[in-house]
Amino acid sequence: MLDPLLTASFDRLWSDLEPVGRLSSGGYRRFAWTREDHTLREWFAAECAHRGLDLVEDRIGNQWAWWWDGSGSVDDAVAAGIPGIAVGSHLVAVPDGGAYDGPLGVVSSLATVDALRAAGVQPGRPLAVVNFVDEEGARFGVACAGSRVITGAMTPERALSLTDVDGISMAEALVTAGRDPQALGPDEETLRRVGAFVELHVEQGRGLVDLGVPVAVASDIWPHGRWRFDFPGEANHAGTTRLVDRRDAMLGYADLVLGARKEAQLRGCVATVGKVAVTPGGVNAIPSHVTGWLDSRGPDEDEVRSTVAELTTRATDFGATVTEESWTPATHFDEGLSDRLRGVLSTDAELSVPVLGTGAGHDAGILACAGVPSAMLFVRNPTGVSHSPAEFAERDDCHAGIEALTACVTDLVAT
Amino acid sequence: MLDPLLTASFDRLWSDLEPVGRLSSGGYRRFAWTREDHTLREWFAAECAHRGLDLVEDRIGNQWAWWWDGSGSVDDAVAAGIPGIAVGSHLVAVPDGGAYDGPLGVVSSLATVDALRAAGVQPGRPLAVVNFVDEEGARFGVACAGSRVITGAMTPERALSLTDVDGISMAEALVTAGRDPQALGPDEETLRRVGAFVELHVEQGRGLVDLGVPVAVASDIWPHGRWRFDFPGEANHAGTTRLVDRRDAMLGYADLVLGARKEAQLRGCVATVGKVAVTPGGVNAIPSHVTGWLDSRGPDEDEVRSTVAELTTRATDFGATVTEESWTPATHFDEGLSDRLRGVLSTDAELSVPVLGTGAGHDAGILACAGVPSAMLFVRNPTGVSHSPAEFAERDDCHAGIEALTACVTDLVAT
Repeated sequence: MLDPLLTASFDRLWSDLEPVGRLSSGGYRRFAWTREDHTLREWFAAECAHRGLDLVEDRIGNQWAWWWDGSGSVDDAVAAGIPGIAVGSHLVAVPDGGAYDGPLGVVSSLATVDALRAAGVQPGRPLAVVNFVDEEGARFGVACAGSRVITGAMTPERALSLTDVDGISMAEALVTAGRDPQALGPDEETLRRVGAFVELHVEQGRGLVDLGVPVAVASDIWPHGRWRFDFPGEANHAGTTRLVDRRDAMLGYADLVLGARKEAQLRGCVATVGKVAVTPGGVNAIPSHVTGWLDSRGPDEDEVRSTVAELTTRATDFGATVTEESWTPATHFDEGLSDRLRGVLSTDAELSVPVLGTGAGHDAGILACAGVPSAMLFVRNPTGVSHSPAEFAERDDCHAGIEALTACVTDLVAT
Repeated sequence: MLDPLLTASFDRLWSDLEPVGRLSSGGYRRFAWTREDHTLREWFAAECAHRGLDLVEDRIGNQWAWWWDGSGSVDDAVAAGIPGIAVGSHLVAVPDGGAYDGPLGVVSSLATVDALRAAGVQPGRPLAVVNFVDEEGARFGVACAGSRVITGAMTPERALSLTDVDGISMAEALVTAGRDPQALGPDEETLRRVGAFVELHVEQGRGLVDLGVPVAVASDIWPHGRWRFDFPGEANHAGTTRLVDRRDAMLGYADLVLGARKEAQLRGCVATVGKVAVTPGGVNAIPSHVTGWLDSRGPDEDEVRSTVAELTTRATDFGATVTEESWTPATHFDEGLSDRLRGVLSTDAELSVPVLGTGAGHDAGILACAGVPSAMLFVRNPTGVSHSPAEFAERDDCHAGIEALTACVTDLVAT
């Protein structure tokens, strides 16, 4: 069991974060490069400084806080063949999201540093705690923007041109946040330091509840993507325009919503239309343009592709244009690393460690695609609900998560 | 034909207004009690002052600019049995609306004052030019809020509690605009002054184009209303939640959109869903709440009611609650007044004056329901398009509108 001082450390970190960006619903508004994000990043930097970690920001502003007491710099260690281990997650949230998705991994990683220190562990290789920027894509539409840009999975040109609902581009948002848009790009220097990445995350389904255990190791992330459907129409008066004279962009959108449910069901996938923008958006004006965003995923890539192809055909009948905003193929986490974590965790008789797949994307998946050995730990979610104020994990399970992460990191930094 | 000096006066007034709230689309953003509205109201006040009119604001801030050179005050004239004539319209616009809907009536009314002055007309009863506030309901959802409140068709409590998309109540918006929310209420003092109201408006259909004439007199306004449909759901992760476990509020909304088209078509009505709000509104979050606004109208009240009843039944199957935000029965304009206007206009051999009904609501309809003798003049719209940047009227037709309005007012103020 964890030292009560360490559980208190976790509890304090957790309650520090609780008020930041909290809404009256109990959910959170924590979008990238907003005031709330700034507060979270400053908090992260202060906690890292408090632990004597060396904070480095990469080309897009992901925060990497290094602990390395060995000879020379972290880069010297890398050059000497002992690349570092990184643990962490993100602090941003989806609109009205829960407290756990992201922050649980960051807070558990900081608590793991405390646990290693308390146990007198002297890492044999550099250890970083990382806070990835803009993981949810809640503001600019593309998830995992921070890891996509530094791995080259998204070009800086595309990232900078993405806009939020107010028409503010990522380039403008960066400038407003005091950052340099020109700095963005693939960041080999940063990635070279990371010999392995482990992301702890609250589970976003009911796998662990059904199994009755608190922690799992991830196997893979389903193939998943986002598509923007733009339906054209013609603005006109809702009272005086005959139905036969209308070109109402909302009709094609409604067909997309109902079609997405049907076509995904037929193919064993999931599909969701959770965001829509209407022009002009007046009660008494026929919509001249409706944009709907489709999210689709599933265990089988061909079935996801087929779902989207069918919806594209239907939407084209309404004159729509369809744009793939992101696509991530099935991601299999590093087998060697995952097996090693299972081995470490299974030596503890109290923990039975299952292996679970997931439909959710993560920075760990982006790093895995870029060739960084990556793995994930999931912590039980009693309702399976996520991306909602109702998202939850029992405190005991959070503590079990730190215990598991600490055991894994202790093993990984030993050599 | 009009004096070239008067057409120049119209043209100057028109070009003064053109830049206010203009968007890159060519449409307008002119919402009630915003900076743009303030600019428009100040412009109106200055033009009235320039003409020596006496500007009075009623209990909600509708601007009435009186011309009365007779003995005593306007109220003295009313007490003496010669109530006034009012002409005018509104300056606010729907989101991305056109330049003509509203402003054409206000500008034509000011130009009519100029025409009467140039012709040496001495009004035998008071004449007002009026700018009604918040006619479109674009910000707070209820159309004709200005005329509804002063006639008692909407209580001040309800008006003040309406909120815009940012959650700002009308009460807050009034305070921000430097106004007193407590002042709102039925305004008998104002209405008593108005013996008749004539609103000139760009046509919002193709009636005059088909007939090949520039000006018509209105017969009636179709019964029309707005309903808010609130669909409940449960926020959850779009990637990890099985379809069978979902409560996706967007599905019921999509059914409403498609149902509205079908049910209205079956009943000879029109129905439109032009505005939607989604919570949380994230691409990767299942919607926990979707609100859709339905606008429905038609020549037959029972058919409109039946359309909405059928949609309500369908929505209830999705757990929705349906709220009637406004309802206006069929409005027949004052027959005596309308016949008098047709008589005036038909003495001019150049003008053949048809009578047209309309699906659009207007302040003139609200005043008519409240017992104020009211009538409308429509000016030809070559495309029939309205509530769109493409809304248009030929300049010659605008001038024909002033000519018609001037003839009508000359007749009405003579006795």
